[in-house]
Parts: sequence; C-alpha cells; structure tokens
Amino acid sequence: MKPVKMLTDPAAMELLGDETRRRIIYLLRARELTISQMAEELRMTPQAIYHHIKKLVPAEMVEVAREERVDNFIETYYRATAEVFSLSWGTSGKNQAQAEQRMRDTLLSLDKLAIRVRVEEDKVAQIIKTQGKIETFGNKEDLEEKVSKLDGVDFIGKQELASVAFMISLTDKQFQEWLELQKELRKLLRGLLTATTGPERQKSSARKS
Amino acid sequence: MKPVKMLTDPAAMELLGDETRRRIIYLLRARELTISQMAEELRMTPQAIYHHIKKLVPAEMVEVAREERVDNFIETYYRATAEVFSLSWGTSGKNQAQAEQRMRDTLLSLDKLAIRVRVEEDKVAQIIKTQGKIETFGNKEDLEEKVSKLDGVDFIGKQELASVAFMISLTDKQFQEWLELQKELRKLLRGLLTATTGPERQKSSARKS
Repeated sequence: MKPVKMLTDPAAMELLGDETRRRIIYLLRARELTISQMAEELRMTPQAIYHHIKKLVPAEMVEVAREERVDNFIETYYRATAEVFSLSWGTSGKNQAQAEQRMRDTLLSLDKLAIRVRVEEDKVAQIIKTQGKIETFGNKEDLEEKVSKLDGVDFIGKQELASVAFMISLTDKQFQEWLELQKELRKLLRGLLTATTGPERQKSSARKS
Repeated sequence: MKPVKMLTDPAAMELLGDETRRRIIYLLRARELTISQMAEELRMTPQAIYHHIKKLVPAEMVEVAREERVDNFIETYYRATAEVFSLSWGTSGKNQAQAEQRMRDTLLSLDKLAIRVRVEEDKVAQIIKTQGKIETFGNKEDLEEKVSKLDGVDFIGKQELASVAFMISLTDKQFQEWLELQKELRKLLRGLLTATTGPERQKSSARKS
C-alpha cells in the first residue's frame, strides 16, 4: 500500500462520492479482508460488497493482496492501493464529459455559499484544463512516486517532503509558469461572477497569529 | 464525522506518523467500534489500543460516538472525527520546537532525492511561518467548515467546492498577497540550496496532454 496515489480519472471521483465505497476503502486501509469479511464488518450482503469491489479494482483504488487456499476454495484478500488518494482532473481529457458535469455541479453549488455565478459552458472546460495543469505541474506525480519509495521517512514526512521538493525543484521559468496558471484559474473563476452580486466578502481579513 | 478537518498541531502529525494509529483511524472511519472490537480487528491487546486512543482523543482525531449499557457495563464506541485530515503548521506558533524539528528532518530528507541543502536554523522558522500562512490563508478553515455542513453535495464535491470557493472569494489584494507568500516560500527554500550542486533538473518539462 502506497502512502499517496494520484487519481486523475473523474470516474474515480464519482466512485468516492458513495459512502459505502469509502467505508470499504477505509476498512481495506486498516486490514486485508475477503469479501465475506467486509460484508460482516459493514453488515451488508457479500453480493453488495462484490458489486462495489468490481468497480473499485479497475479504478485502481483496491487491489488483490493475496490468495489463500482453504480446503478446495481460493479465498481472495483485498487491500487499498494507497492510504491517501489525491484527486486531480489531470490533463488527459479522459472522460471529459464527466469532468465537465462535476465542475458544473461544483460551480452551481457556489450558490449555497452565497457566491452567485453564471456557468458558461466554454469556461467550464477551460477551468478543468487549467486546474488539471496546476495539479500535475512539473512532474509532480513522478516526484510523489519517488518519495513514496523512500525508507526512513514516516507517512506524514513523505507528504511534507513531496511538497517541499516540488517547490524547491521548480526552475525560475517553471515557477513563473505555475504562478501564471494560478492567475489564469482565478481569472476564469472570477469571470463567472454575476455583476450584480459579487462574492461574499470576508468579514475580516485578520488571521490568527 | 466531518468530511475534512484541519489539524494544525504538530503533535497530530507526530501521532499520524505511526502506522498502528493510522490503522485505528481507518477502522474508525469505516465503523464505530469499542476498544475490544478494535483489539480483535488489529490483533492487538485492548491495553495497547487503549494507549493509542488515549492519545488520539485529545488530538481531536477520534471521539466518543456513543455509550451503550450492557448489563452492568458501559461500552464506549469511538469514531474518527473526519474522513480526511488536512495537516497544516498553522500560524499559532504552538509547539514551535516540534514543528521546527519536523521541518528540519524534511529538509534533511531532500538529500535522498539528490537535492542538496544547508539547513539554516533561522530559515527553518521562517519557512514554517510562511507555509502556515499559505495553508490557513483567507479564513480557509471557516470556509471548509461552512462547506462541510452543506446538504446535497457529495464528499468529493465538498472538497472541490472548498477549493473553488477559496479561489473565487479572494479579493484582488488578497490574491496578490497569496502569490507573494508563494514567492516568499520558494525564495526561502531556494536560499538553502548549496551553491555547488543545485536541485536535480527535471528530465523533461513535457506534460501529458
């Protein structure tokens, strides 16, 4: 089980929206379990668990840990592929329609925070693209992979290390590009605000110190 | 159980460095359990589990879910406080020595990635301060709290919403400040690089598209 795994398929985000599937993943981070053991833990039928596992394995969130022969049966034990999933739109354009639907829903939900936006279709695609570029900037994935294999660094230390190593490894040119992407993302988002309302102002800009 | 909880005490990071404690937390995200149930799940003694729970409760990672009376005994069921812990140095300066020790270790670990740095004591404190400011910028914590309470938005949707709402809510002045903090952090980190080596160059700046 890796400390962190980046998932860039919007289908994975869809799967994690379901509470039962998340509970299965939490169990499989704590222990390797068979389908019938998971069923007992979560008080569900093995059929229901099997149905979820069949979706989680191809999405690379769950994997077969080992198989044990018990009399004439083969018992399959599953485990989670990582302790943390880091979700990103990526830049592959894979399942674009699904990614756009999710972003559209997110933008519409801003209303619940009293932030009024007008969702423009062409902007949605651009926002996803820019966010994906930021999240996968500078071979971040390779760096996380390298860090995850290190010995003598604990689970939290690895996450801190990946973040510090990312920042320190960027060349001046890359860092400038990264800043530009952040500016582009904010500009795209701000462009959706409806002129009459604007975002809710923060009551105070004071921070704890 | 909240979707996301920000932890700003370096002691919490220390606790999460331990694998057994993380496994306890994963179990308590899947189900509410008593100490003896956890002991059975993880094949440990109830005493060992109790020892960990006694540390996880004051750190606000685990809480009492409910108490049940069974004959003359009160059975206490525990649960995790959140499905995701987001770790941050914060800006409180709480447990500063511990935070500095962790950051020092992280900087020294850069060596394992062939990034050579000279760890300067006064810079370590500045790096923690700047990182803490970035992570808690613009009342991010309040925003996450508000988002976590929304109905009709799924677990992943809430995380996406918090990130989009953060970016769109910043005033121009705040966004400029946020960019300056990112520049400051990178400058501090780059200042630690030893002149003779420099960071490992990335083999290719090409991104998947």
